[in-house]
Amino acid sequence: MDAPLFLRACRREPVERTPLWLMRQAGRYLPEYREVRAKVSFLELCRTPELAAEVTLQPIRRFPFDAAIIFSDILVPVEAMGVPLTFDPGPKLGKTVDTPGDIEALRVPDPATELAFVGQAIQHFKREAPNTPILGFAGAPFTLASYLVEGVTSKGFHATKSLLYQHPKAARDLTGKLAETVARHLEAQIDAGADAVQIFDSWAGVLSRDDYLEFGLTPTLQVIERLKGKGVPIILFAKGAHASLEEVAQSGADVVGVDWTLPLDRVGPRVGRNVTVQGNLDPAVLFAPPERIEREVQRVLTEAKDLAGHVFNLGHGILPNTPPEHVQTLVEAVARMSRRPS
Amino acid sequence: MDAPLFLRACRREPVERTPLWLMRQAGRYLPEYREVRAKVSFLELCRTPELAAEVTLQPIRRFPFDAAIIFSDILVPVEAMGVPLTFDPGPKLGKTVDTPGDIEALRVPDPATELAFVGQAIQHFKREAPNTPILGFAGAPFTLASYLVEGVTSKGFHATKSLLYQHPKAARDLTGKLAETVARHLEAQIDAGADAVQIFDSWAGVLSRDDYLEFGLTPTLQVIERLKGKGVPIILFAKGAHASLEEVAQSGADVVGVDWTLPLDRVGPRVGRNVTVQGNLDPAVLFAPPERIEREVQRVLTEAKDLAGHVFNLGHGILPNTPPEHVQTLVEAVARMSRRPS
Repeated sequence: MDAPLFLRACRREPVERTPLWLMRQAGRYLPEYREVRAKVSFLELCRTPELAAEVTLQPIRRFPFDAAIIFSDILVPVEAMGVPLTFDPGPKLGKTVDTPGDIEALRVPDPATELAFVGQAIQHFKREAPNTPILGFAGAPFTLASYLVEGVTSKGFHATKSLLYQHPKAARDLTGKLAETVARHLEAQIDAGADAVQIFDSWAGVLSRDDYLEFGLTPTLQVIERLKGKGVPIILFAKGAHASLEEVAQSGADVVGVDWTLPLDRVGPRVGRNVTVQGNLDPAVLFAPPERIEREVQRVLTEAKDLAGHVFNLGHGILPNTPPEHVQTLVEAVARMSRRPS
Repeated sequence: MDAPLFLRACRREPVERTPLWLMRQAGRYLPEYREVRAKVSFLELCRTPELAAEVTLQPIRRFPFDAAIIFSDILVPVEAMGVPLTFDPGPKLGKTVDTPGDIEALRVPDPATELAFVGQAIQHFKREAPNTPILGFAGAPFTLASYLVEGVTSKGFHATKSLLYQHPKAARDLTGKLAETVARHLEAQIDAGADAVQIFDSWAGVLSRDDYLEFGLTPTLQVIERLKGKGVPIILFAKGAHASLEEVAQSGADVVGVDWTLPLDRVGPRVGRNVTVQGNLDPAVLFAPPERIEREVQRVLTEAKDLAGHVFNLGHGILPNTPPEHVQTLVEAVARMSRRPS
C-alpha cells in the first residue's frame, strides 16, 4: 500500500493531488470543540490525553483532511521547565526570565514523565484514526524564549531583543536549553507515534536577518540535527523569516512553511528542489464568499505548480470565527483543482 | 548654497555623508517631551500648533538630525472625517465603518480649515528652525481604512480583510475616499512649507502580494499622482510589503522606506537606481551597548553602499524607553562611518 498522501508530499514522491491540513484545524471555529471547552480549561484540555485526542479527531470527522495535528500548545513544556502558566485567554507566565540565574534555574524536562500526556494523546488518536497521519509539534527555541522573557505574547519584543543585544551569551544559553527541551519533546512525540513533526518559529519575523540566523535558526538546527535519525518528516515554519528562506531550506527540514505574504512562485526558486513547501492561503480568505475562496485556492495552486513538493495549508492558524462550511469549500476546491491525471 | 543634505539624498545628488532622522524622533524617549505631555493630552498636543512645533524642535535641539518630522498622528484626519477619536494610550475610534452607508457618511475634510493646526505647526517650526528640512506625513489609505474598520489597532485585521474579500467594491470606495483625504492633507502640509512628505502604510505587511497591490498600493498611487507636481520628495514606507518592493519603487515615490527584516543589499537590486532607500536599523538595537550599536550602524551602511541614495533611519518608530544617550551614539556613528572623501 502506498504511504499516505501527506507523507509522500513531504518526501516529494508522486501524489495524485495536493494534500491539505490546516494549522489549528482543531479549535474554536468548530462548535463541537467549543462544547468540550465549555467544560474544561484550555490547559486541562491539553493535559487530558482522551480529550486532547478527541478534539484532534473532531476536524477529521468533518473534513477529509490529509493529516491531523495533535491538540496541544507550544507553551506546554514551559510549565515543566518550572514556569507557571495560565491562559486568560492569551498566555500568562508566572514569572519572567530576567537574569542569567533565571536561565540557570530553568529545568530541561523529561518528556516521558512530565509531558507524557502529549504522547498519550497521540497514542489515543492513532487507535481511533490509524489511517490519518498525525503531526507532533513544538515551538522553536527563539519563539519559546520570547515568551519566557516577555511573560506574555509580546507586541514589540523589546525585552527579548534587549537580551539578544545586551547579553548575547545569556540569550544563547537560553535558546540552547530550549533547543534541548524541544528536541526531547519532539523525540518523545515521534516515539509515541507521530508521523511527522512541525517546529513553529512564530516570531521569527520580528528579527533582522542576522539576528534570525544567530538566535532563531542556529538553535533550531540543533533540534533538527537531533531528529534527523528518527525517519519522520520535519516541517519548519519560521513565520516571516523571508530574508532567510534559503537558509531555512538548508536547515535539514523536509518541509518549509511559508505565510501568505510571499507568493509561492517566488519561494520555489529560493528554496530549491530538496524541500517541500507548505502553505500559504491567508486564513482571512476563509471569511470570503465561496467563489472568492475558490479563486484564491486556484491562485495558490498555480503559484505552487513548479515546486518540488507542496502541502496545502493556511499561512497561519485558522481564525476562530471561520464558518465551517467555508472549510468544506476549501477542502473540495483543493482536491478538485489539484488532481493530477494518473 | 547647497540644498540640505537630506533633500539631496532624497534626490540622489552627491552627499558628503549619509543623512539621518528617526521615525518618532519627537516623543516619549525624551524627558522634555514627557514634561509637555504631563500637561496636555496626546490629541491636544497634536492640535496645538505651538506645542506640536515645540516637541518637533526638541530632538533637533539635542541631536544634529538632518530632518524633522512634524509632530502629529496618522489618525488626525479621521476626526475631521466624522469619526470621534481618543487615545488610551492606543487609538480608539468612536464608531467603526461597517456598511456601505458608513463609508458614504465619511466626509473628505477641508484641511485648510479642519486640519489647519498641522500646517500652522509646520509654519511655527520653520520660523524656529529654518535650516532643518521638515517632513509632513499621513497614513496611507489602506492603513487608515484598517483603523476605520477595526476601531482600534488590530491584531489580526479580520474585519478589514473581511471587507476586502466580501465587499471589494465597498473597500475600494473607502480607500478611494481616504486617498482623496490623504492627498489633500499632504498638499496642505506642503503648501504650509513641508520640505518632503512621508506616507506610512504601517499595515501593508498583513496583506498578500495581490491584496497589497489592489487595496494598498493602488490608492497610494492616487495620492502620489496628486503630489508629484508639488516638487517635494515623497517617501513611501509600506512596512512589510516585501513581496511588492519592485512595485513600491515604481510608485512615483522618490524614497522607499524599508524595515529591518530585509537587508539593504537585497533591497537595492530590486528597487533599482531611480529611488533612494530609507532605513533600516531595528529600533531595538538602541537598547544595546554603544559598541553593538556602532557595529549595527556599520552593517547597515555597508549593506547600503551600492544604493543609488540612502537616508539612514530606523525600520520603525523609536521605542519609548530608548536611552537618549544611545541616540547620540547612533548619530555620531552614522556621521563618522558614512563620511565620504570630498
